[in-house]
Amino acid sequence: MPYFDAASSAPLHPVARQALQASLDEGWADPARLYREGRRAGLLLDAAREAAAEAVGCRPDELVFTPSGTHAVHAGMSGALAGRRRVGLGVTVSAVEHSSVLHAATAHEAATGGTVTEVPVDRYGAVVPETYAGALYEDTALACLQSANHEVGTEQPVAEVAEVCRSRGVPLLVDAAQSLGWGPVEGAWSLLAASAHKWGGPAGVGLLAVRKGVRFAPRGPADERESGRAPGFQNIPAIVAAAASLRAVRAEAAAEAVRLRALVERIRARVPELVSDVEVVGHPQRRLPHLVTFSCLYVDGEALLHELDRADFSVSSGSSCTSSTLTPSHVLRAMGVLSEGNVRVSLPAGTPEAEVDRFLEVLPGVVSGVRERLGAPAGADEAGGAGGAGVLDAAGTGPSLVVDALGRRCPVPVIELAKVFGGVPVGGTVTVLSDDEAARLDIPAWCEMRGQEYVGERPADHGVAYVVRRVS
Amino acid sequence: MPYFDAASSAPLHPVARQALQASLDEGWADPARLYREGRRAGLLLDAAREAAAEAVGCRPDELVFTPSGTHAVHAGMSGALAGRRRVGLGVTVSAVEHSSVLHAATAHEAATGGTVTEVPVDRYGAVVPETYAGALYEDTALACLQSANHEVGTEQPVAEVAEVCRSRGVPLLVDAAQSLGWGPVEGAWSLLAASAHKWGGPAGVGLLAVRKGVRFAPRGPADERESGRAPGFQNIPAIVAAAASLRAVRAEAAAEAVRLRALVERIRARVPELVSDVEVVGHPQRRLPHLVTFSCLYVDGEALLHELDRADFSVSSGSSCTSSTLTPSHVLRAMGVLSEGNVRVSLPAGTPEAEVDRFLEVLPGVVSGVRERLGAPAGADEAGGAGGAGVLDAAGTGPSLVVDALGRRCPVPVIELAKVFGGVPVGGTVTVLSDDEAARLDIPAWCEMRGQEYVGERPADHGVAYVVRRVS
Repeated sequence: MPYFDAASSAPLHPVARQALQASLDEGWADPARLYREGRRAGLLLDAAREAAAEAVGCRPDELVFTPSGTHAVHAGMSGALAGRRRVGLGVTVSAVEHSSVLHAATAHEAATGGTVTEVPVDRYGAVVPETYAGALYEDTALACLQSANHEVGTEQPVAEVAEVCRSRGVPLLVDAAQSLGWGPVEGAWSLLAASAHKWGGPAGVGLLAVRKGVRFAPRGPADERESGRAPGFQNIPAIVAAAASLRAVRAEAAAEAVRLRALVERIRARVPELVSDVEVVGHPQRRLPHLVTFSCLYVDGEALLHELDRADFSVSSGSSCTSSTLTPSHVLRAMGVLSEGNVRVSLPAGTPEAEVDRFLEVLPGVVSGVRERLGAPAGADEAGGAGGAGVLDAAGTGPSLVVDALGRRCPVPVIELAKVFGGVPVGGTVTVLSDDEAARLDIPAWCEMRGQEYVGERPADHGVAYVVRRVS
Repeated sequence: MPYFDAASSAPLHPVARQALQASLDEGWADPARLYREGRRAGLLLDAAREAAAEAVGCRPDELVFTPSGTHAVHAGMSGALAGRRRVGLGVTVSAVEHSSVLHAATAHEAATGGTVTEVPVDRYGAVVPETYAGALYEDTALACLQSANHEVGTEQPVAEVAEVCRSRGVPLLVDAAQSLGWGPVEGAWSLLAASAHKWGGPAGVGLLAVRKGVRFAPRGPADERESGRAPGFQNIPAIVAAAASLRAVRAEAAAEAVRLRALVERIRARVPELVSDVEVVGHPQRRLPHLVTFSCLYVDGEALLHELDRADFSVSSGSSCTSSTLTPSHVLRAMGVLSEGNVRVSLPAGTPEAEVDRFLEVLPGVVSGVRERLGAPAGADEAGGAGGAGVLDAAGTGPSLVVDALGRRCPVPVIELAKVFGGVPVGGTVTVLSDDEAARLDIPAWCEMRGQEYVGERPADHGVAYVVRRVS
């Protein structure tokens, strides 16, 4: 059964399972106690810390174990911000960070009145080091940057940004959740956070590394464990399993990366050939080896996931209809790419080639099925029209059609636009009225894909009016 | 190998191990995802929540899983305090709460300027409901009380205090870490926190129950999981194991409580017979079935633990020499009982009778060995003396001896006091100069045990002068 959502959570690596089971008998006692059972637990914890620190590329006394990657991010950001409070309250993040980083930044802003600066990304989802440098101010206490994006797989220029931060005296926290299994994070980072279940370790273990010399003041109630940086009784069997599996996946990483990269390359190349109106997103070269994301025009992401699940493929999506807030993924939004019919494929280590081939067989039928049910325009429907009647638009610059898509959810507003678009002559405009958040992203993305001009948006009585001009 | 420190962490229950292993294959995916693996994980999580809620005695939607008991306490307190911020910033706790509660109260005080009121306890370590009622004020936002004390086993009058709180409109958070395996917490509590590894579940799982209608505003960065009350990816295999083992230990609790209570009763009765100058602490009846604590005069707690460990017994201690801060346990201090030579025995379920008997065989020799090495006075040394010379004390009220124990750690100041005490006549005093924190607790406790008068303390050039009057 093909599970293609390793970026959410990877199945447990066999080494993690073995290490977990082996340490259940030795790792249940309090490692702070001086008796036999405590000493044994403490030895396991020490050994795991050494192994994990080696894989991270830091000293064992720079590394603590947290209950999750989210806890590592939260504790790392709050501790670093509190440690540099005298410098200021500013925090700089990329616009495509994981929600744990963005929410911690928002919480910091709410609690302290500090400011959050979001660094924009290019169309591939990467920050530009020079742009990042421009977002560091006198009062910037902390900068955050992921090693690679969790939704589109694009690698960030961490080493360059770390150098920029170093020269400005700002500590850089790297969220390495998606990449640590593939290799250490290069560059002069100050703090690093990661999550074991992303590399095939067990749930319940995060890593937080804080380089010596980085000012750090743990927040929250005092607790002696984990150098005062991660409260709560340590989960030693899971920590042992996390460290052992990190070692194991690293030993396999180079070969597996080559193999999966070829499979992902096949998906990147074949999907646009097999399915019409698809945008493959993320950087074509500088990306994680196992992850590829694409969006399908005129497709409902939730229906697509449901149909792929019926065909036994488990994938995820950044489409608005698959989120609890009905907004498209903030990553796709920051990149300015199509969000409708979005599919993220992230292959776990060991994914057989045959599963990828079967996915490529199944996908075209699934997409066309969803499109059919939605009444999406086929290629021919869109192309033509001799130019319908139209009415003069407000500025009187040409014929204009208005499409009322109020109350309709993604991808309907874009489908309605496409259906009528052939009916206006070149030079004319179509105005789409929509109250769906996805339209703000997907109407401009449609224009980009179709080579038409996106004029802009303006508030309407209900929702927003999006204006598109036919240029060909 | 007798492990007698279940109150720190219990060995993994066989049912926990089975449930953990069985759910490793089904519980690794993200339960928020809609595909097959996510739905399976979600079903496991739902079932575990129902089972745990039933054992707690709350609705499933009132219960969330946290990464530890400490996290449950921290999140419960901060959420309840924030939810009642308009009422005030006061928090009332018993003086013998677990450090996670006391540290969260201190952190609240530091962050908000709120006040912490500590309710004193009686000599058994229990609060008196009327006293607790007197510590609730107009601005009390939250009250906290443990179900039973972790160091001396005394059960608190939770139902009565809950009723007092209810009538005053103050929510009560119960830290049930030590008792939940033995049974549900009775009474109209508002919030409840517990920890799975205390009942034989795995590490990495805490429970936080918040009754419907309790004002609660989660603190920290937003996170959708666990009703927004516990951030981070859920550790579902451990959660399943926690719920299954809670059910299992509850099924065995009634019978095992009777059996262990008899073994504990044997320790309570026999230790004072076998070892001279011992104080058994905690309530003789209203206590946890498996836990007993006693203190041995003229004994170094660390040496005692070390010797017991050499004899294969793993116990813990509230003596100052076993703490990183060199202060006696705050619980013993609040009770006003002897802290030197303190031993906590907490029997895991299934402890064989023979292990307890062997402990009783071994203990006397271990204690006398430690006493001998410390040069502690034997019964005869203390008794007598025709009344030494002495000098007039400052007030000129009688002969006085001064013992300089500056720089000496527990139990030396008390040993030095005992050595010279026979040298002053009835009516005379001994003044002990000490800079050891334990002396403040242990010199009065010695007076209580010996039926002598503790006059008081006053600052001295270095440290503190403790004055004792011989009355018999």
